[in-house]
Amino acid sequence: MRITESVKKLEAYVPGEQPKSKDVVKLNTNENPYPPSPKCADVLKSFDLDRLRRYPDPNFMELRAAIAKANGCTVDNVFVGNGSDEVLAIAAKAFVENDESIGSLDPSYSLYKTLAAIRDVPWAGSPCNEKVKVNGAKLKNVSLFLWTNPNAPTGEWAEPATIAEFAKKFPGVVIVDEAYADFAEGDCLSLALAPKNRNVMVMRTFSKSYSLAGLRVGYCIGPADLIEAMFKVKDSYNVDAVAQAVALAAFKDKAYHRKTVAKVVKTRKAFFKALVKSGWDVLPSASNFVFAKPPAPQTAAGLFAALKARNIFVRYFPGPLTGDRLRITIGTDEQMAILLGALDELVR
Amino acid sequence: MRITESVKKLEAYVPGEQPKSKDVVKLNTNENPYPPSPKCADVLKSFDLDRLRRYPDPNFMELRAAIAKANGCTVDNVFVGNGSDEVLAIAAKAFVENDESIGSLDPSYSLYKTLAAIRDVPWAGSPCNEKVKVNGAKLKNVSLFLWTNPNAPTGEWAEPATIAEFAKKFPGVVIVDEAYADFAEGDCLSLALAPKNRNVMVMRTFSKSYSLAGLRVGYCIGPADLIEAMFKVKDSYNVDAVAQAVALAAFKDKAYHRKTVAKVVKTRKAFFKALVKSGWDVLPSASNFVFAKPPAPQTAAGLFAALKARNIFVRYFPGPLTGDRLRITIGTDEQMAILLGALDELVR
Repeated sequence: MRITESVKKLEAYVPGEQPKSKDVVKLNTNENPYPPSPKCADVLKSFDLDRLRRYPDPNFMELRAAIAKANGCTVDNVFVGNGSDEVLAIAAKAFVENDESIGSLDPSYSLYKTLAAIRDVPWAGSPCNEKVKVNGAKLKNVSLFLWTNPNAPTGEWAEPATIAEFAKKFPGVVIVDEAYADFAEGDCLSLALAPKNRNVMVMRTFSKSYSLAGLRVGYCIGPADLIEAMFKVKDSYNVDAVAQAVALAAFKDKAYHRKTVAKVVKTRKAFFKALVKSGWDVLPSASNFVFAKPPAPQTAAGLFAALKARNIFVRYFPGPLTGDRLRITIGTDEQMAILLGALDELVR
Repeated sequence: MRITESVKKLEAYVPGEQPKSKDVVKLNTNENPYPPSPKCADVLKSFDLDRLRRYPDPNFMELRAAIAKANGCTVDNVFVGNGSDEVLAIAAKAFVENDESIGSLDPSYSLYKTLAAIRDVPWAGSPCNEKVKVNGAKLKNVSLFLWTNPNAPTGEWAEPATIAEFAKKFPGVVIVDEAYADFAEGDCLSLALAPKNRNVMVMRTFSKSYSLAGLRVGYCIGPADLIEAMFKVKDSYNVDAVAQAVALAAFKDKAYHRKTVAKVVKTRKAFFKALVKSGWDVLPSASNFVFAKPPAPQTAAGLFAALKARNIFVRYFPGPLTGDRLRITIGTDEQMAILLGALDELVR
């Protein structure tokens, strides 16, 4: 008794470094370089302390109604969590039996493996570059498939039709993790809301395109019976009153959101070209980061360390599928210029 | 596949009503009637939006350090969650195998049963009025025991020595849920920090005595290896940046906290006397509520409905162990006077 066997063996997920100093160029955790909508500051400044004293709305109806309206569905199709991480953990409870498993693309968001380990079920990865096979030996018994689109850390975009084809044959639940979809040119909402759909959900977050990573609000949209199952397993009051209100303010400020996203996409396109021009192999990205391989004899690991020594943080994932590249978050034009300047010196 | 069998059968926890109108006397969910420390408003007003943009500290070091210092332990003894509800859910993952079960007093916080159901393990209740028996048939195979002290909905206080005696023989982990301990005259901190202790933790919340139910911050203190296990299974960023900062401000304002708690305790004592004088059977309470049985021929269910019709909300838990009493949160003196006035009319 005391600590469970599976937890004893568990290796905790290692999030990207969060250096305290503001003197760093922080391009390692896919945060948005621009501040959240000024409406968020207004909400904080005028927040009614009585709302802190009372329990928050356990069903976050205002926020859900706004999300539902903007996406052409009803509140019964919307679930909100304490960050997408919680949405995922709840899905792992609601849609995975103890003897089933969780699948995802490989490489993909490295948290998924930890999620499966915490749920104490196996994880199965499917290569990204070929069609994800429903009946491939590795995906047998997978009841929850997490398809990040655009994918991370690759940045690559899969056509909704490809995911639809997979989902049609897949017996379990498919969550399309659209954390980065606002930076792409499409999404899978229509799959999640199709009248005949029984097993596809899209999941989104306020952490990236809304610049609210510090707040922890994620949501998913999908069939009402799946949403209802998620409500049953969530903690009673899983999203606090401040987070509900600030997220709502950011969500409503559509003009600001569009503007910020457009700036990031513009910078990404310019940075992509600059890297290619310098001899890097860069995967096409529909996201707010690029996944890029430096020209030989430079190595990803070597550059990662050399940049860190200069207070420039990017992300390096060791391993056979990812270790030859760096994942570089798109910052401001100024930040990318500093990075390019440093790379210029280091690669030369 | 799709929704798991256990979730299909699950009945969601029903939190106390959160009426939207401010024109109600709300004495049903044990919220503090006084606002949080004015320092909380200061934090919100001056919150650096850059902290919203970035991910929060995944290890909440500032808040943990303050909690550790105030309780005479190190940060390795402190875990923080998105409300005590999350601390409990994480404990249920970290300390309960799939074939074990969760125990608590009975009656006690009604969420515990739902917690066990979500974890898909049995729940076992132990009567409060006799010694909780470690080897009682019902507690066999229980690996996590949740001992609410003061208990809810009864308000009753168990001596730390009684809990220590139980914990010494209990093979699993004992969490003393001290949600209401600030309103009592003691706590079990010394058990949780005793050098030889291997299995006792205390759990506390900012929702009650700190008037921050809307914020969702709870924490527990205990042996470092148990705390480490909880860190392994938590979501990466489970407590948002605003919640960390506001809770810290409230925690540091010890004078305000003491003052608020003293006011609630004073009102409780006066209200207790008034109820007894009116013929109610009131259990001794060390909490911010009382659990009281109206004089015949009045019934708890009848008064609950009659009070609600007058916009006075108290809590009624049907069932053989609780259905003859009302749980009444201690509000301001003015609120209790309104309630007593209404009861006077109704009981007469």
